[in-house]
Amino acid sequence: MKLYEQVATELGSRIEQGFYRCGDRLPSIRALSREHGVSVATVQEAYRLLEDQGLAQPKPKSGYYVRLRPATPQLPEISRPAQRPLEVSHWEHVLDLLCSGETPGVLSLGRGMPDITATTLKPLQRALSEGKRGDSLRGFAYDSLQGSPELRQQVARLSIDAGCKLHPDDIVITTGCQEALSASIRAVTQPGDVVAVDSPSFFGSMQAIKAFGLKAMEIPTDPVNGISLEALELALEQWPIRAIQVTPTCNNPLGYTMPETRKRQLVSLAQRFDVAIIEDDIYGDLSFQFPRPRSIKSFDIDDRVLLCSSFSKVLAPGLRVGWAAPGRYRDQVMHMKYVGTAASSTLPQLAVAEFIEKGGYERHLRRMRAQYLDGRDQMIAAVERYFPAGTRISYPQGGFLLWVELPGDIDTLQLNDRLQPNGIRIGPGVLFSASGKYRNCMRLNFSDKPSAAQDRALQQVGIEVQQMLQEIDRVA
Amino acid sequence: MKLYEQVATELGSRIEQGFYRCGDRLPSIRALSREHGVSVATVQEAYRLLEDQGLAQPKPKSGYYVRLRPATPQLPEISRPAQRPLEVSHWEHVLDLLCSGETPGVLSLGRGMPDITATTLKPLQRALSEGKRGDSLRGFAYDSLQGSPELRQQVARLSIDAGCKLHPDDIVITTGCQEALSASIRAVTQPGDVVAVDSPSFFGSMQAIKAFGLKAMEIPTDPVNGISLEALELALEQWPIRAIQVTPTCNNPLGYTMPETRKRQLVSLAQRFDVAIIEDDIYGDLSFQFPRPRSIKSFDIDDRVLLCSSFSKVLAPGLRVGWAAPGRYRDQVMHMKYVGTAASSTLPQLAVAEFIEKGGYERHLRRMRAQYLDGRDQMIAAVERYFPAGTRISYPQGGFLLWVELPGDIDTLQLNDRLQPNGIRIGPGVLFSASGKYRNCMRLNFSDKPSAAQDRALQQVGIEVQQMLQEIDRVA
Ligand SMILES: Cc1ncc(COP(=O)(O)O)c(C=O)c1O
Ligand SMILES: Cc1ncc(COP(=O)(O)O)c(C=O)c1O
Repeated sequence: MKLYEQVATELGSRIEQGFYRCGDRLPSIRALSREHGVSVATVQEAYRLLEDQGLAQPKPKSGYYVRLRPATPQLPEISRPAQRPLEVSHWEHVLDLLCSGETPGVLSLGRGMPDITATTLKPLQRALSEGKRGDSLRGFAYDSLQGSPELRQQVARLSIDAGCKLHPDDIVITTGCQEALSASIRAVTQPGDVVAVDSPSFFGSMQAIKAFGLKAMEIPTDPVNGISLEALELALEQWPIRAIQVTPTCNNPLGYTMPETRKRQLVSLAQRFDVAIIEDDIYGDLSFQFPRPRSIKSFDIDDRVLLCSSFSKVLAPGLRVGWAAPGRYRDQVMHMKYVGTAASSTLPQLAVAEFIEKGGYERHLRRMRAQYLDGRDQMIAAVERYFPAGTRISYPQGGFLLWVELPGDIDTLQLNDRLQPNGIRIGPGVLFSASGKYRNCMRLNFSDKPSAAQDRALQQVGIEVQQMLQEIDRVA
Repeated sequence: MKLYEQVATELGSRIEQGFYRCGDRLPSIRALSREHGVSVATVQEAYRLLEDQGLAQPKPKSGYYVRLRPATPQLPEISRPAQRPLEVSHWEHVLDLLCSGETPGVLSLGRGMPDITATTLKPLQRALSEGKRGDSLRGFAYDSLQGSPELRQQVARLSIDAGCKLHPDDIVITTGCQEALSASIRAVTQPGDVVAVDSPSFFGSMQAIKAFGLKAMEIPTDPVNGISLEALELALEQWPIRAIQVTPTCNNPLGYTMPETRKRQLVSLAQRFDVAIIEDDIYGDLSFQFPRPRSIKSFDIDDRVLLCSSFSKVLAPGLRVGWAAPGRYRDQVMHMKYVGTAASSTLPQLAVAEFIEKGGYERHLRRMRAQYLDGRDQMIAAVERYFPAGTRISYPQGGFLLWVELPGDIDTLQLNDRLQPNGIRIGPGVLFSASGKYRNCMRLNFSDKPSAAQDRALQQVGIEVQQMLQEIDRVA
């Protein structure tokens, strides 16, 4: 253990033990340096580690404080989706959500956009505009079908943080995580097959299931532990399931991270029933835990996990740079990738590779983790303040998405319509189910720095919900 | 008729009537200006038109000459593919061709790359590196699912040249023509369906047919008139065909352009049997005829044609900017586009839109048409010189691809293997058939400016072919 880690560990355990309380000012850097007989730089390093761990929080010109950690909100209960494979529907509502982000003047609270305004992205912008110097025509030529070697090397390097040891040749670059997911789903299924999914589940993979003539078997999912392994096992016994598609780390929309033991158990289950696992790790690096949690892929001993991810949530979605590490299904995924788009756009790949290589990725990640952690706590507080009693809220372990379950019979599609005149859109819950569940739920986005406008919008949503409740009561 | 058009028409008919012969020097600009009593600028304009029409050719510092037009080579006969729907195979050979372009030191004569070194592409490079000024974050955000409005507007404007009147809302931007093709194919079929294709046919769409569990019905195709409408009609009567996929203008690999009357008849046939037409127009703007031929889409009165194209062949494939105009299937294509890649990379779209808007597209196109016309004639001459008697050659009406049919039982897969030690790769014919036809054929690329290296390579291919012929003779 390095010196700064020792200091951090000691201070951390004092915080954990309640020696310092939430909001307390922590000892000054100078004082700690004297107390431990270490350099100022070492203490600074220690504080940065505590910050990464979500324990300490700097305040400008006044030192470090114990991070205010709100009490865990009242969580949703474990989900209870339909108990049979179903065709996916609700494309028209997905389309509506996708288009809502494009309307000027509309505050789209439900979309999946990260904050792209951070100054730590500036070097990426420079890399994009400069292209590869001295190799200026490369962006004009077809890239390799598998993706640029430079980028695959960087992705392989980053994968170590998730406990993986990928080789650049294991990786196939894709046009966003969406292409990774759809190529993976197609690679391991035939039309008519069943895919088991966590529930609620990201609508992009669900719509791919729909498009390829597959059925989705939604598995009950716990807002803390993720997909129910018990229910999954039953489903595997009962239905001709070919693949399990999950987002186990910083789940969209529920925000949980499956504990490591459960990730391991999921791999065993997949082995026992000889099915593939399609792991969506797009928010994994945005975990509030530091170092980040291991991916399911890191426990994959017989190459049956197809890891899918992209830079859309950590960096910028407009680049459309994603990847898959498809294990034993690599050839099939390459075929699907060829058929789908032949190659991905060359320049964005080279720019991202350069940005990572020069250390920009880690710098930006550190910044965004802190911002999103703050954003989470503030949005939870606002929802608790403005929404009616009985509202349940997820407690995201990373990323920037919140799941809210409303009391009573409130239909969030209707809520969305009623919010339209106010220029506010939420993400209706039905998008996240094949079977029309989650009508009383919504997804919110806390990626933007907390603002008065956002607070007002949440207040407005709360008011509308209260009114709908009263109307329902009146009818009943 | 404008003044310069009158001058051009008169001069053109003198050339057609043999008053000036191939290679003759044409009257000087000054002389013509005096003769017709028009300005020097008008004559210059007239000569540019004759150049576009492939009649005149400028020589630096020496004026205009009648273009040397070689005699039409001995064309391949009409193709005779299998007479039933088949599953598509040969993915491994496609993969091999795709990868051959990536090996340093290999001259890949069979690939589908345009010349990306032309100086007329410089403004595109600038547009790419500058991004949209004053809107620098736009490249980071998800683009609209349908594609950037700016680009759709430019594509709609360009479509007028092909006789279409598309509205920007008719257009869906895609990640290359490949995505346009695969989304279109998926949008109009169900697994198990049959798609009729011209034969030989582009392997990208064939592999999409394979990937989606469809069957390909290869239709005999004439190297001058394109897909046989008579054979197609028989097939439509006999098999459950859901769509017809063709590349009717500057076909890949055969180079023909279907005459307008046949394009019209194809639409009638599709109407009669109520099937969709998927028209790949990726080389259409590179037609040597000026103005360019009309697309099938321009005759589409009931919105059953899905037009697919991209900027990969006219500008640069590494951008991955393509589009579809899917007519009545727009919603289905949008769904497939969402499922496949969600959105396309934003910046390349904006750069292409700016390049077109500022006139760079037409300028570049004019340059490339002239270069490829020259390239075609020189490569035909080289093949006639170096290849054995009995070799048949296509006579491309646009684009930069040549189809060569070898005499005897020569297997071009084997030829390719034998060329490997010389660092030369050709495009084996089997890639262009579902049923393993065209073993004795190959595709060559004449996009690069003719060079000694290319001439040597063609000579080497010719030598190898001669040797193989002798070996076959010896065995027989
Ligand atoms: C869980 C999840 N997977 C995949 C995607 C798609 O990512 P990309 O934009 O990289 O295609 C998203 C985006 O919303 C997502 O939330
Ligand atoms: C006829 C034809 N269609 C489509 C494509 C694919 O084009 P893109 O690179 O834009 O996906 C090609 C490329 O080789 C082609 O030749």
